[in-house]
Amino acid sequence: MSEVLAKGKAAKEASFSLVDISTEEKNEALAKIADQLLVDQGMIIEENRKDLEAGKKNGLTESVLDRIMLNEKRILDIAEAIRLLIDLKDPIGETIETIEKENGLLIKKKRVPIGVIGMIYEARPNVTVDAATLALKTGNAVILRGSSSASYSNQALIQSIHQALENSSVPVNAVQLIEDTSRETAKELFHLKEYLDVLIPRGGKNLIDTVVREASVPVLETGAGNCHIFIDETADDQMAENIVINGKTQRPSVCNAIETILVEENWFSQYGKSLLEKLEEHQVEIFGDDKVANVFEKAKLATEEDWYTEYLALSVSVKVIKDVHEAIQHINTYGTNHSEAIVTENKQNATLFLNKVDAAAVYHNASTRFTDGSEFGYGAEIGISTQKLHARGPMGLQALTSSKFYIYGSGQIR
Amino acid sequence: MSEVLAKGKAAKEASFSLVDISTEEKNEALAKIADQLLVDQGMIIEENRKDLEAGKKNGLTESVLDRIMLNEKRILDIAEAIRLLIDLKDPIGETIETIEKENGLLIKKKRVPIGVIGMIYEARPNVTVDAATLALKTGNAVILRGSSSASYSNQALIQSIHQALENSSVPVNAVQLIEDTSRETAKELFHLKEYLDVLIPRGGKNLIDTVVREASVPVLETGAGNCHIFIDETADDQMAENIVINGKTQRPSVCNAIETILVEENWFSQYGKSLLEKLEEHQVEIFGDDKVANVFEKAKLATEEDWYTEYLALSVSVKVIKDVHEAIQHINTYGTNHSEAIVTENKQNATLFLNKVDAAAVYHNASTRFTDGSEFGYGAEIGISTQKLHARGPMGLQALTSSKFYIYGSGQIR
Repeated sequence: MSEVLAKGKAAKEASFSLVDISTEEKNEALAKIADQLLVDQGMIIEENRKDLEAGKKNGLTESVLDRIMLNEKRILDIAEAIRLLIDLKDPIGETIETIEKENGLLIKKKRVPIGVIGMIYEARPNVTVDAATLALKTGNAVILRGSSSASYSNQALIQSIHQALENSSVPVNAVQLIEDTSRETAKELFHLKEYLDVLIPRGGKNLIDTVVREASVPVLETGAGNCHIFIDETADDQMAENIVINGKTQRPSVCNAIETILVEENWFSQYGKSLLEKLEEHQVEIFGDDKVANVFEKAKLATEEDWYTEYLALSVSVKVIKDVHEAIQHINTYGTNHSEAIVTENKQNATLFLNKVDAAAVYHNASTRFTDGSEFGYGAEIGISTQKLHARGPMGLQALTSSKFYIYGSGQIR
Repeated sequence: MSEVLAKGKAAKEASFSLVDISTEEKNEALAKIADQLLVDQGMIIEENRKDLEAGKKNGLTESVLDRIMLNEKRILDIAEAIRLLIDLKDPIGETIETIEKENGLLIKKKRVPIGVIGMIYEARPNVTVDAATLALKTGNAVILRGSSSASYSNQALIQSIHQALENSSVPVNAVQLIEDTSRETAKELFHLKEYLDVLIPRGGKNLIDTVVREASVPVLETGAGNCHIFIDETADDQMAENIVINGKTQRPSVCNAIETILVEENWFSQYGKSLLEKLEEHQVEIFGDDKVANVFEKAKLATEEDWYTEYLALSVSVKVIKDVHEAIQHINTYGTNHSEAIVTENKQNATLFLNKVDAAAVYHNASTRFTDGSEFGYGAEIGISTQKLHARGPMGLQALTSSKFYIYGSGQIR
């Protein structure tokens, strides 16, 4: 039996004993994990160093190495995040709906765990702990398949988690790490329908696209954010500038950063040049249409490809357009259904934009950077869904649950 | 451009004008459809006859021909179902969650249409109207791909629906029928990610399995029901018999019918023979384990295959087992996560069974036949989901909706 099959089977079996475990038992296990990670931090940092050394040899960039790096401060942050998770309300067991039938049948729709959650993700080892603890809090077993570039770190973290679970009511098998990080194990997970209830990819566009295209297991699609801001004719110029600079430069590498600015033509004649200069001051590279290039010579001419591009860097595309209708059309053509904003004092245009733009989060006069589990008050987040089924937008604990109808009778037949 | 691509594009465009259409406008369009179907019933019945004649030539069974057949009574029933749908509450626009942040941001999670729904289904032409009208009620466009055996009927129904929409606020393009019923068009739909938001297969196990395995568009899995009833030691004998006979014989061809009976050994020694005789009286063919065969010689010996089989006919498999734990184990191994029942007077065993059995609907002392949208009071049903994401169990209007975060600010940045 392959590693994936054996661990899948073990996870499924563990998931059956998790369905009626109490909130207290789950929280106790989480607390033990937080403690054990701190006890083991020396070992974890030592193993992490092996990944970093291999990464340097393999020529990984500084930013990827930084994502892999664990130190005492970061392990403390991970443990702190688990303690915050313990304080969150347990969604499992909640009655979502009650139906009483005339024949005496009582139907209760209750929130239950999904079962076994698979995660396929890239370099960050903190995702290993995040995913394992979010899954346990919601009564799910989890199968983790991380990146080879974080293999030593992931194995060390899992060893620590398993050690903690040994002394808890949660079966050790509830958390499984696939140690073989070859392509074959990812492919096996894509089709592990017998043991896996959902697969969540976290990482770059290529990874996500591959999982969505190939997997026959249901997928929760997260991530790609080609986010727009539309500055309407009546936009307050200072507000528009603040939101643009914040959305583009505060943290350009994240999925809710702004990638394209659409500007209504009259607003552009008045304030366009000043906005472009402000972006330039913030070291932002500008790809503009011809109207932009005409007033701002440092702008490069945008190609069709630019309107599709999620730069995830200090670059932005800028287009001058006629009105809110053209903005909606452009966004629904080139966007990725993540986060989209309009800046306007015209309420009618705001309503039109919010209703017609097809995205997980639509903003009137605020920065797209707020699309985030903790900003929304969910406290913890497994990712941001850009699909429309099951969960859309920031996914908190509830996104890791399913439902089940409990029907209580006294002999009713049809 | 292929038929599927052209109609996909048209449906997607129509879906954008459906997002802010009012409940009144949708209901008016539905009323016009109901009226038009009655006006056109002569034409529809004539076209339906062509399908029936072709079906007879092609050797379709009587039961398939009956599913295809439309007459005045059936068209009237279809129109009546639309009028009931009009009376149902429109879920679109409902605010699901409101979050107010200290910085003044107001976040509202609202219910919105999914966008474009694809349906791939088998012989029944009534599904054509069902799917189109359920989609419209929830503000969705729909692409229908029916069976070649109902081509004339489906085209006639769609002609009538289009005629009705001509005089309504709903764009005609919101309802698309793929006329080419070759395998190729189904395959194109599997991967029409650009225009299709979800694909719902309705039909036999083969159809559903193929769609789940091959589609890269998200799938709502419906259908297969290998449902069990477990008769516990303390079960009331009359109640157990009533539920068994009802679950097995009242309508054996449906997915919530009982396919396997698990009987606790002590109950079996006392009442087993009488139950088997009762089944025999109802012309039910019995596949039993050796304990069953020992007391009832008309039983055939069950093979491993029988425990996996959804007979959808007057056949049942019967197994004598030790206790509730073995019942749970058996169901979680062979079941299809649809509807599962326990008959018992022992509350502890009932609780254990309901919690541990992994299914959309779990019953204590009632027939599995109740798993049904109209029985649950949803009024209309697009299918019964056996998956765990998005929707589980009978899917009413809400299963055809997504959500969207509306964020109202006054210049907030991070």
